[in-house]
Amino acid sequence: MLKNTEKTMDKLVALCKNRGFVFAGSEIYGGLANTWDYGPLGVEMKNNIKRAWWKKFVQENPYNVGLDCAILMNPQTWVASGHLGGFSDPLMDCRECHERFRADKLIEDYCAKTGEELPKPIDAFSQAEMKSFIDEKNICCPTCGKHNFTDIRQFNLMFKTFQGVTEDAKNTVYLRPETAQGIFVNFVNVQRTTRRKLPFGIGQIGKSFRNEITPGNFIFRVREFEQMELEFFCEPGTDLEWFAYWRGFCKQWLLSLGMKEENLRLRDHDPEELCFYSKATTDFEFLFPFGWGELWGVADRTDYDLTQHQNTSGKDLTYFDQEKNTRYIPYVIEPSLGVERSFLAFLADAYDEEVVGQDKRGNDDIRTVLHLHPALAPYKAAVLPLSKKLSPAAEEIYHDLQKEFMVDFDDAGSIGKRYRREDEIGTPYCITVDFQTVGDETTPADHAVTVRDRDTMEQVRIPVSELKAWLAEKLAF
Amino acid sequence: MLKNTEKTMDKLVALCKNRGFVFAGSEIYGGLANTWDYGPLGVEMKNNIKRAWWKKFVQENPYNVGLDCAILMNPQTWVASGHLGGFSDPLMDCRECHERFRADKLIEDYCAKTGEELPKPIDAFSQAEMKSFIDEKNICCPTCGKHNFTDIRQFNLMFKTFQGVTEDAKNTVYLRPETAQGIFVNFVNVQRTTRRKLPFGIGQIGKSFRNEITPGNFIFRVREFEQMELEFFCEPGTDLEWFAYWRGFCKQWLLSLGMKEENLRLRDHDPEELCFYSKATTDFEFLFPFGWGELWGVADRTDYDLTQHQNTSGKDLTYFDQEKNTRYIPYVIEPSLGVERSFLAFLADAYDEEVVGQDKRGNDDIRTVLHLHPALAPYKAAVLPLSKKLSPAAEEIYHDLQKEFMVDFDDAGSIGKRYRREDEIGTPYCITVDFQTVGDETTPADHAVTVRDRDTMEQVRIPVSELKAWLAEKLAF
Repeated sequence: MLKNTEKTMDKLVALCKNRGFVFAGSEIYGGLANTWDYGPLGVEMKNNIKRAWWKKFVQENPYNVGLDCAILMNPQTWVASGHLGGFSDPLMDCRECHERFRADKLIEDYCAKTGEELPKPIDAFSQAEMKSFIDEKNICCPTCGKHNFTDIRQFNLMFKTFQGVTEDAKNTVYLRPETAQGIFVNFVNVQRTTRRKLPFGIGQIGKSFRNEITPGNFIFRVREFEQMELEFFCEPGTDLEWFAYWRGFCKQWLLSLGMKEENLRLRDHDPEELCFYSKATTDFEFLFPFGWGELWGVADRTDYDLTQHQNTSGKDLTYFDQEKNTRYIPYVIEPSLGVERSFLAFLADAYDEEVVGQDKRGNDDIRTVLHLHPALAPYKAAVLPLSKKLSPAAEEIYHDLQKEFMVDFDDAGSIGKRYRREDEIGTPYCITVDFQTVGDETTPADHAVTVRDRDTMEQVRIPVSELKAWLAEKLAF
Repeated sequence: MLKNTEKTMDKLVALCKNRGFVFAGSEIYGGLANTWDYGPLGVEMKNNIKRAWWKKFVQENPYNVGLDCAILMNPQTWVASGHLGGFSDPLMDCRECHERFRADKLIEDYCAKTGEELPKPIDAFSQAEMKSFIDEKNICCPTCGKHNFTDIRQFNLMFKTFQGVTEDAKNTVYLRPETAQGIFVNFVNVQRTTRRKLPFGIGQIGKSFRNEITPGNFIFRVREFEQMELEFFCEPGTDLEWFAYWRGFCKQWLLSLGMKEENLRLRDHDPEELCFYSKATTDFEFLFPFGWGELWGVADRTDYDLTQHQNTSGKDLTYFDQEKNTRYIPYVIEPSLGVERSFLAFLADAYDEEVVGQDKRGNDDIRTVLHLHPALAPYKAAVLPLSKKLSPAAEEIYHDLQKEFMVDFDDAGSIGKRYRREDEIGTPYCITVDFQTVGDETTPADHAVTVRDRDTMEQVRIPVSELKAWLAEKLAF
């Protein structure tokens, strides 16, 4: 009998929940709209993604340094960046059932259903144009089916809070909607203290918040998320070259972490789709189980942000180019990646159900496996004593390996079942301790273990004394 | 002439600002009350502290696993934890000058000035008792000197925000004031997916927010901060034993990272000082330049939190003890440490100004040095070519080392000045590339470098081929 081995969101969500990757946030209280908590395996994988980014974008990179800014910033930041004025969604209410909708999404859903093509990208529609389109086409409320909407009003996506004891405008602050602005306001601080010359970049990993009306698709679109952003500062005129450089660098980073090229596509924005300040933008899209979705944005933001902050703050944010004996505001290339989205992309990319034989009843024997790159796998290895009698010897190896790597230990159930459990969570190497390892009265110990490869399922015998070095080589990134 | 080599907060703040450890948040906009941004060196040191915690409390620990919960949680969480009802400061306004004060602080400051002793700890005072004490002693407004205060009212320290499009009670959510509650609400999820038996612990690192009325002392008390919390679940009756275990474990962690024992003291709470649900609490206090301040709290919280969540959620949060064939709510030991406070403690502890000789005018020659543990130092090593001509050879070594460690490169200025720059940021090893390293027509290359130890200032010659392994051994934690 054939089983359905299709890769679906439901299967990924179930695996995440059952094995401790991702739980619904505040679950015992019925959750909180699309918040998620990362379990023991999820937090390791998330940290591995962040480390892999930091290693290649900061630690090893000759141009870049790191930064870690506060989530709460002076509200003038959001005046300068344009978020206070323009970072909003066009909302309308159904007058009949009082449900609330994003006007742009209503139009997109209508086009997807009818096959109608828009004359220009939806982002280029004005509020009035959206309203007339909805009225002309008589688009109805998805909930009650009536066509009786309020006017469109703009809803700002920044979470607002109050710092200090009174809840008034003077004390209003916002949870940052992106980490990028913390980098811009610190451009001079970083340049001064590191004595860097252009080109150089500043990378940051941190939480951002957006009060999305329609979060969804598991961890794909969430209100609280983590970003890995690089702002790369360069001389105007060299920016398109650097744009191409970082576009290639980002792609290479994904591929070097094992992402399949067929699940990735780079979509360059048309001139009319570009933000008014951007010279070039590429969306990296990944083929999620629900379809293509944006994974990584790489943009040439010109000197827009620094100029805005210079004008708003009145502080000099220019760079003095010693070689050319001239001052200018640098151009900026921004690759911006979400931790949760890359988590979901790597997970979906790695997920597989393989038919590895047939059981006694003739049903397909299927193993679920995460072919995660070893650098991303929560556990780098699992130590499995073949018998409970061997647990003390196995524990010794386990504790020694733990000093270097995240390692699992499992002595419960048949060895076959334990292999399957490790396959399902992406552990690249299973280390089996058997009676040969420790020896007995008749057979001398060989002080070696059997190491099984998750992907090939092949096994090799390796001396315990060489295990750490062997693993370190396999896990290098 | 003697210079003042006293360790002061001003000197630490200046070093942090000038060398890129910590900048005032949103500085170009005049800052935002006591927010701080971590610069290129600060972010590395902060990450190193977090990694050192995770390594010892999670990765290497046989009992513990990790977790990473959302900052925004279902508000019922804060009903159960007591934060919504009781997490507040007693505030009063001066009717004359409209300045706002914490009543408990007014009393504490009064006692510190007059030497008067309170009959019981200030935390045990009721609101009415504080008010009468202030009236009886005629305590005056520190700003205008009048005695004319409003009544005391409780001000909740949680930051409030709104999720969704309307700003009403239904949509009110809070920024978590501690990471601990995320662990409690996930206790069953983690236990189920990891199949752990008691005792076991769950560790979490993440941001928390408290709307403090009087933040201050640089990064010691901030509104937005990061916590490293472990909740260790054990059988009731074994809790005091485990309390002692974690109390010792935490102390050992600090000492193993080089903290001087004389700057640390453990203060056990008196029975009357304990929270009503706590059986035992120890405050780890560190001698900051401004005096002793709380660094780490270790508390036996009994079954209070899980019981509260069980009652509020209606979900079964008991643990089934297979060996004893019985169900119970575990007791909890909680060591809770702030990232920023430990950052400041390690920094202050490591800071030193050493007289290393006298200059030509007879003034003391002073080197400022951070004797940071290598695991905490932002850069593990600096590669310094003795001459610009040697830069290509030095860069090769630099790029090779960068694959393993955070490494600095500096080819500007005299070697003495460069050593001093690295001392000041705590780089444990300076690697000097000289003409002998590369050789010339008359002298063959020795393919070795001089490595200078930051603390002893002693130098050794090490072959380039052995450099990585030599460093790895020195940096191990």
